[in-house]
Amino acid sequence: MTATAADPGTTTSTGTKIVLAKNQYGKAEVRLVKITRDTARHQIEDLNVTSQLHGDFEAAHTEGDNAHVVPTDTQKNTVYGLAREGVGSPEAFLVRLGEHFTGSFDWVTGGRWAAEQYTWDRIEDHDHAFSRNMSEVRTAVLEIADGRQDILAGLSGLTVLKSTGSEFHGYPVDRYTTLQETTERILATDVNARWRYNTDAVAAGDLDYNAIYASVRTQLLRGFANTHSLALQQTMFEMGRLVLEAHPDIEEIRMSLPNKHHFLVDLEPFGQDNPHEVFFAADRPYGLIEATIQREGVAPTHPIWENAAGFC
Amino acid sequence: MTATAADPGTTTSTGTKIVLAKNQYGKAEVRLVKITRDTARHQIEDLNVTSQLHGDFEAAHTEGDNAHVVPTDTQKNTVYGLAREGVGSPEAFLVRLGEHFTGSFDWVTGGRWAAEQYTWDRIEDHDHAFSRNMSEVRTAVLEIADGRQDILAGLSGLTVLKSTGSEFHGYPVDRYTTLQETTERILATDVNARWRYNTDAVAAGDLDYNAIYASVRTQLLRGFANTHSLALQQTMFEMGRLVLEAHPDIEEIRMSLPNKHHFLVDLEPFGQDNPHEVFFAADRPYGLIEATIQREGVAPTHPIWENAAGFC
Amino acid sequence: MTATAADPGTTTSTGTKIVLAKNQYGKAEVRLVKITRDTARHQIEDLNVTSQLHGDFEAAHTEGDNAHVVPTDTQKNTVYGLAREGVGSPEAFLVRLGEHFTGSFDWVTGGRWAAEQYTWDRIEDHDHAFSRNMSEVRTAVLEIADGRQDILAGLSGLTVLKSTGSEFHGYPVDRYTTLQETTERILATDVNARWRYNTDAVAAGDLDYNAIYASVRTQLLRGFANTHSLALQQTMFEMGRLVLEAHPDIEEIRMSLPNKHHFLVDLEPFGQDNPHEVFFAADRPYGLIEATIQREGVAPTHPIWENAAGFC
Amino acid sequence: MTATAADPGTTTSTGTKIVLAKNQYGKAEVRLVKITRDTARHQIEDLNVTSQLHGDFEAAHTEGDNAHVVPTDTQKNTVYGLAREGVGSPEAFLVRLGEHFTGSFDWVTGGRWAAEQYTWDRIEDHDHAFSRNMSEVRTAVLEIADGRQDILAGLSGLTVLKSTGSEFHGYPVDRYTTLQETTERILATDVNARWRYNTDAVAAGDLDYNAIYASVRTQLLRGFANTHSLALQQTMFEMGRLVLEAHPDIEEIRMSLPNKHHFLVDLEPFGQDNPHEVFFAADRPYGLIEATIQREGVAPTHPIWENAAGFC
Repeated sequence: MTATAADPGTTTSTGTKIVLAKNQYGKAEVRLVKITRDTARHQIEDLNVTSQLHGDFEAAHTEGDNAHVVPTDTQKNTVYGLAREGVGSPEAFLVRLGEHFTGSFDWVTGGRWAAEQYTWDRIEDHDHAFSRNMSEVRTAVLEIADGRQDILAGLSGLTVLKSTGSEFHGYPVDRYTTLQETTERILATDVNARWRYNTDAVAAGDLDYNAIYASVRTQLLRGFANTHSLALQQTMFEMGRLVLEAHPDIEEIRMSLPNKHHFLVDLEPFGQDNPHEVFFAADRPYGLIEATIQREGVAPTHPIWENAAGFC
Repeated sequence: MTATAADPGTTTSTGTKIVLAKNQYGKAEVRLVKITRDTARHQIEDLNVTSQLHGDFEAAHTEGDNAHVVPTDTQKNTVYGLAREGVGSPEAFLVRLGEHFTGSFDWVTGGRWAAEQYTWDRIEDHDHAFSRNMSEVRTAVLEIADGRQDILAGLSGLTVLKSTGSEFHGYPVDRYTTLQETTERILATDVNARWRYNTDAVAAGDLDYNAIYASVRTQLLRGFANTHSLALQQTMFEMGRLVLEAHPDIEEIRMSLPNKHHFLVDLEPFGQDNPHEVFFAADRPYGLIEATIQREGVAPTHPIWENAAGFC
Repeated sequence: MTATAADPGTTTSTGTKIVLAKNQYGKAEVRLVKITRDTARHQIEDLNVTSQLHGDFEAAHTEGDNAHVVPTDTQKNTVYGLAREGVGSPEAFLVRLGEHFTGSFDWVTGGRWAAEQYTWDRIEDHDHAFSRNMSEVRTAVLEIADGRQDILAGLSGLTVLKSTGSEFHGYPVDRYTTLQETTERILATDVNARWRYNTDAVAAGDLDYNAIYASVRTQLLRGFANTHSLALQQTMFEMGRLVLEAHPDIEEIRMSLPNKHHFLVDLEPFGQDNPHEVFFAADRPYGLIEATIQREGVAPTHPIWENAAGFC
Repeated sequence: MTATAADPGTTTSTGTKIVLAKNQYGKAEVRLVKITRDTARHQIEDLNVTSQLHGDFEAAHTEGDNAHVVPTDTQKNTVYGLAREGVGSPEAFLVRLGEHFTGSFDWVTGGRWAAEQYTWDRIEDHDHAFSRNMSEVRTAVLEIADGRQDILAGLSGLTVLKSTGSEFHGYPVDRYTTLQETTERILATDVNARWRYNTDAVAAGDLDYNAIYASVRTQLLRGFANTHSLALQQTMFEMGRLVLEAHPDIEEIRMSLPNKHHFLVDLEPFGQDNPHEVFFAADRPYGLIEATIQREGVAPTHPIWENAAGFC
C-alpha cells in the first residue's frame, strides 16, 4: 500500500493539513468456478478471489478524478479472463493476476490479491459429479510491493478435538481465579493458520503450492493429535515446529486458535457420576491463543501480515 | 401441539373472546458432547438438542401460574442426565427423552424433540483425536402426539455439483422470459432432505437409524450423480425414488433443493471463447425446488411436518 | 401446494407405487430496491422477494418435461417488471405477483409468495440519503389456494429487554431441577411474530397494511414493556391479546420467542456483591416459547402456516 | 505483542533454530450486560469484551510450563469483577482492564483489549424496558506497549445509501473493460471505520469518548449524504476529512467501504422503461475501497493497526 505524500491536502481550522495515507481498492469476493474438461474426467477448481491495487490513486480521493482508477468491474473481468487459461493453484493464479495489473498500468506499483479455495470430492469416483468437502477453507495471499512478491498460504476452520491427553495446571492464582486445575480435559480448536514462503523461493517460481499445502495440513493435524498437551500454547508451538521442520521454504507460520471449551457437566445433583463422558460445548466466551513461530533470524514482523484478518 | 379450549380467555372490545391455541415451549440448542471411553479407543457423539413440550400450559399464559411449567432449565439438565446412559443414535436418544417427559408429568401429553448431529473423523486412525467433518448435518425430529411416536430423519447442507449432464429447455415463454435454452449447464444444489419413518416400524423399535441414515445419504448422492438431468425436479424425484425403493420403512421423503446457479461468463468481449470452462457462482437469487415423494396411498400431509423449518 | 394424483408413478421392488405429492418451485430471494423519484424527495423500498408456484408440474418430475415449468428466471424477471409499476406495501405487491401468475398460466392453480422488507431512515431529513434501520425485518406471505387468498404479515428479530419487572417461580420440581426461584430477573427476547388477516378482509382489498404493521409493532412493544412478567408465556399472551384487541381484521397471531438468558454473575468469590447489576448474556441453550393466540372459534390451524419457517 | 528472543528453541534438520515470535492470548467475546439501577430509571450497557495479554509466555509454548499463564478464565472473571464498579464507556473500561493486568503481573508487559458495544433504545421512554438498536456496532481497542496506551475507536456495519448524486466516469479502459460510464447511480456502502486518538490526549485521560463517538458518527453520515460523489474514494476522503476537522484529538481515521452495487434492471425486453427506479441489489462480488486519512506528519502506520481485523 502506498502512503502518498499528499500535496494538495486540505487544511483544517486548527491549521493541520489532512492527507491521504495508506490506501487500496479493488473487487472483493469474485466467485470463480473453473471446470477443466480436456477429458471426460472433469476437474473442478472453486475459488473466491479478491483483487486490490496499490499505487497512485490520490486524485480520485481528493478530486474525484478517475483517470487512474482501473474499475473494480474490470478487475473482476480480468479474474475471469485469466482463469480461461487455467488456475493450477490459488498462489500461481494470484501471481498471474498481480503481474497482469502491475505490468499493465504504470501507476499500479503493487497490490494485494487473495483467494479462498473450496475442495470438492468425487461422488463415488464419478467423472463429473462432486460433493463439496466443507472441512476447511484453503487461503492464499499475494502482496507485490517494491518490486517484490510475497505469499501467505493458509487454512481456516479446520476443527479438531482430543477427548483425552490434555491437562491444564500450574498457573498463577489471584483474587479473580476460580478455575480448578485439571489433568484430564477435552482440548478442541478451529485451526486458523497462515504461513509465509521464503521470498527467494517465491521468486524462483518452482514451489509446488498444492503439494506443500497438503503436507502442511497433515503436519498440523499430527501436531495436534500427537502432542500430550499441558497448554494449548504448547500444542500450537509443536504444530508450527513440525511445519517448519518439514518445509524449508516456509519462513514462519502464524496461528490463531480458539480454545473451544467443553465443560464437564455436574451430574451429581441428579445422583449420577460423570467420569469425563458428558460435556457441554460452550460458544462464548472462548480462549484465544495466537502466535507466530519462525526460523531464528527472521524479522519479528513482515509487512504482508499488516492486512491479514485479525492476528492471522 | 395442543390447541386447548381456552375457557378463561379475554373478551375484546369488539366482543370476541381471545384464546390460547397451539403452543409449545422448551429448551433449544442444548450442545451435548458425549465421549464413550470404555476402551482406549474413544467414540464421540456431538449433538445439538431441542426439547419442546405440549400439554396443558394454559394457566401460565393467561395467569402466569407456573405449576405445570417444567422449567426449560430442567429440560436441559434432563438432556445431560439421560446422555450419561449413552446416546446411540439421535433418533433413539430423542425417544428416551420424549418418553421421559410424557411419562413423568401427567399434563405433558406430547412434544417435539429435535437434534442435529455433527460428524467427526479420526485423525489418521488416532484413538482419541478427531477432526470435524463439516460436509453435512444430520437431523432428527421426534413428535409424540395422541400416544403415537413419529420420527423424521434428515440431512441438511450436503452440497453437490455436476459439471455436465444437465439440460434445461422446452419451457413456456411469455413476455418476461429472457432465459436461453441450454443442453449443457452446471447443476448444483445443497441437499436438504427429511424422511418420515413408518409409524409401526418406529413403534416396533428395531430400526437401525444409523445404518439407514448412511444408506439414504448414499442413495441421494447416487441419484444426483447418475441422473442425466432435464430439470432439477426430475433429479429430485429420482433421488427420492431411490431412497423409497431401498428402504421399505420410509413412508415419504421431502426435499428442498436450491438451484445454485453457475453462469457461464461471456469472455467474448475479451477476445476469448468459453467452452463451458469459466463460471460465475451466484449467491442470490436462486431457484428453489421442493417436493414430497411418497408411497401411493400415504396421506398427502402428516402433522409432523407442520413445525419443520420451511418446507422440509 | 398441490398433491397431484401421480398416475405414472414408479413401482418399487416391494410392489408399492412411488408418487409425487406436495410440491412447489420458484425463485428465492430476489433482491429488489425500488426508488420512487417523482419529486426531489425520493422514497426507497427495499425487499427480498420469493415466488413459488403450485399446480400441475408432475411431468417435470417424472419425465423431465418442462412444458409447464415457468422458469424461475422468468419469475425473477416478473418481480422486477411488476415493481416498475410500484410496490406500495409488501402485501399489496405479493398480491399483484400472485394474481399475475395464477392469471397467466392455466396449470398454475396457486402458489406462495413471500417478502422481507428492510427499513431505511433519512439521514438528517435528507431528500435522497438514507441509513438502514436494522432493528427488525418486516415479513409478508401470500398464499393462493382453491381460489382463496390468505396473507400472513410479520416481523422478525425485534430484540427487547426488561431490566426488572420479571419473576419466575412456582414451577414443579423433579430429580433434574436445579434452577432457583427468582422474583427479580432480566427478561429478554427476539420478537418473531406472524399474524394472519381475515380472509374476507383480504378479499375486500382495503386493508392498510403499512399502517396496521406500524400499529402491531407498537402493541407488541407495549405488551412486552408494560406486563409485569411471571412467565414469558404470560408476557407473550398479553402481547398477542393487545394486537387482536386493536385489530379486528387480524384473526390470529403466532409468536416464537427465545428466552435469551442473562445470568447474574456470582461475584462473591472476588469479595463483591452483585445486586442485579452484572450479567452474563448467554448464547445457547436458550428457552423457546411459542404459541398461537387467536379469536375464539377460529380453526386451530390454517393451511398457510404449513410452510412457515419453524413454528411461525 | 512481544517477540521474545527464544533461547531454548528447537533446531531443525536443516540446522535452523525454530523460535517463538509475536504471541498473545486471552479470553475472547465475554458478553457483559451491566444494569445501573441507582434510580428507578435504569441504564443498560451491553458489551462484548476480549482481553489478550502480551509479555513473557515462552515457557508455556516451549515446555508447557504455565507459571506465567494467567488463565483466560481469570481474565473473564476480571471483566465481570471490574464491571461491578461501572463501565462508563468501552474505552474507559478497557483502560481499567489493561491497567489491572499490566499492574498485577510483572511479566505482563502489555496487551490488547477490545470491545464491541451494542445500543439499546428505551421503549416509549419506559424506565426499564428497551429495544435493541441494531443499526451499527460501536468498537474500541486499547493497546498497551512499551508503557504507552493507544486507543482505536470505531463503528462497523452502518449501512447507508444515496439514491442519486453519484457518478462514475473518466476511468481507464483496457481489453477487460466492459463497464459503461454513468452520471447517475445508486451509491451504497456499509461504513466500517476506526479512528486513533492522539496518544497524549489518551494519557491526559480527559477525552469524552461517548460524546466524540456520537459526533464522529454524525460527521460520517453527513460526509456521505452531502458529498456529490464522482467516486466512492472521494466520498470516503471527505468523510474522513470532516471527522479530523471536527476532532483535533483524532490523529487518523481508517475506513473500509464495500461498494454495494445496485444494478439498474434492464426492463426493455418486457417493453418497459426504467428511469433509475428498479434495481437489483447484488451480494458478491462487491467493490472494496479502503484508506487511511490522517493529519500531515503523522507516521504512515502505527503498530496498533497490526492486529485490526483486515484493513481496519
